[in-house]
Amino acid sequence: MTATKAQIKHLRDLHRRKEREEAGTFLVEGVRLVRDALASSSPMEGFYYTEAAAADPAVVELVTLAQKRTPDVYRLSARDMDAVSDTTTAQGVLAEFRQHHPAIDSVLRAGEEESVLVALDGVADPGNLGSIIRSADWFGVQGVFVGHQSVDLYNPKVVRSTMGSIFHLPVVPDVDLLAVLSRARAMGYTVYGADAAGEMHFDRMSFARKSVLVLGNEAWGLSDAVKGLTDVRVAIRRYGAAESLNVGVACGILLSGLHRLIE
Amino acid sequence: MTATKAQIKHLRDLHRRKEREEAGTFLVEGVRLVRDALASSSPMEGFYYTEAAAADPAVVELVTLAQKRTPDVYRLSARDMDAVSDTTTAQGVLAEFRQHHPAIDSVLRAGEEESVLVALDGVADPGNLGSIIRSADWFGVQGVFVGHQSVDLYNPKVVRSTMGSIFHLPVVPDVDLLAVLSRARAMGYTVYGADAAGEMHFDRMSFARKSVLVLGNEAWGLSDAVKGLTDVRVAIRRYGAAESLNVGVACGILLSGLHRLIE
Repeated sequence: MTATKAQIKHLRDLHRRKEREEAGTFLVEGVRLVRDALASSSPMEGFYYTEAAAADPAVVELVTLAQKRTPDVYRLSARDMDAVSDTTTAQGVLAEFRQHHPAIDSVLRAGEEESVLVALDGVADPGNLGSIIRSADWFGVQGVFVGHQSVDLYNPKVVRSTMGSIFHLPVVPDVDLLAVLSRARAMGYTVYGADAAGEMHFDRMSFARKSVLVLGNEAWGLSDAVKGLTDVRVAIRRYGAAESLNVGVACGILLSGLHRLIE
Repeated sequence: MTATKAQIKHLRDLHRRKEREEAGTFLVEGVRLVRDALASSSPMEGFYYTEAAAADPAVVELVTLAQKRTPDVYRLSARDMDAVSDTTTAQGVLAEFRQHHPAIDSVLRAGEEESVLVALDGVADPGNLGSIIRSADWFGVQGVFVGHQSVDLYNPKVVRSTMGSIFHLPVVPDVDLLAVLSRARAMGYTVYGADAAGEMHFDRMSFARKSVLVLGNEAWGLSDAVKGLTDVRVAIRRYGAAESLNVGVACGILLSGLHRLIE
């Protein structure tokens, strides 16, 4: 089947946060990401591919998988695909998935004895949010909370820069971070705030078995309200002249210490 | 003085690599970056600001500093500034600096006894290159070599995402990486290649006092030729499901281990 003009307009609309929220869906682009999404429990709402892409056996395989999941599998012309794609090098494969995430409490209860969670307080750059989710996945973090001041989790650039990790671990978007952190503390978590002015250097510390690592905004770090809910503020020792580290890099460094440092 | 149309065209041209190479200059935008650039030994070729920006005392200070360095200090209309600016939130301050970097051998000789250098083999994303230079600066690395397969060091997004670090430490762009690594080895450096399939995990290793850490391309990692010149391939232990880490994050994690791990 060929997609209608209304469907193409709908896909274009999904580039805007407001429209994504209304539809309750988001776009996933490219062979690898769509494959990761199909392998997850995210419900698929539609699948779109170009004739040129269908020359690739990997795409044919995806089409077959997609047809088992939804009747809404459509062909797009190369021009329409360009129009709905967020990337300049679209691979001719695009899917619409339902926004789908676990409840806060189920994430907090994920690891009975040992659980490391990441919470984000106003991370604004899509590439940073994506790379943080990717690092969290690499280091086996149990879940990620994205505070409602942050960039939208379902922004196409965020989804892309997770490199599929958004489909590998529980990520809860748009949370009230103060409520989540209070609840985590009540459940026995120790809350660590990444803070260049922190009292503790990460290479000299241990993390508790139940830990939440909170990272703040690129420009102003953690908000005062969130700082008030941290147990320990952790810094990364500086040896040179840079004023700060990129927040995604700081997150990766702190997570790399977790397994080495858990008490 | 008000900038001429030819000057405005020249500034716009500098958004393209070819034009930057012909002019031998590059653009620096925003109060903070221009201040860092002025504090470095980079020669300034021109300074441009809007009337609105001049209401900010920080900008007035920069104008005064700029006038001591060059007669080419000009006012731009807000519209012209928008046209020549690479950012959507231009701060009304822009400067042209000469591309200026040390010789390869002077960087290799920087630390007599102890020297950590970073070398990049085809890093393609401007934000990644910028964040790597920023991390190198944070961790007190002696210098960075950017292989000629990488994105242009003077790309405005690279300059911006270094957050000023491009002016804090020696960065040599467009190098023949094989020649640099051979020379480094001849001078007693140990060459470490970041490689997800590496035989050594970074949390179990020490770095030599004279080390070069090489990172590869986002999609395909280190080239075979570069791998052939590494002494040790270092991996970051994985605990979860992500296929890889962002190259900037991997670089930060490996550099965070340097001071802890130097033999």
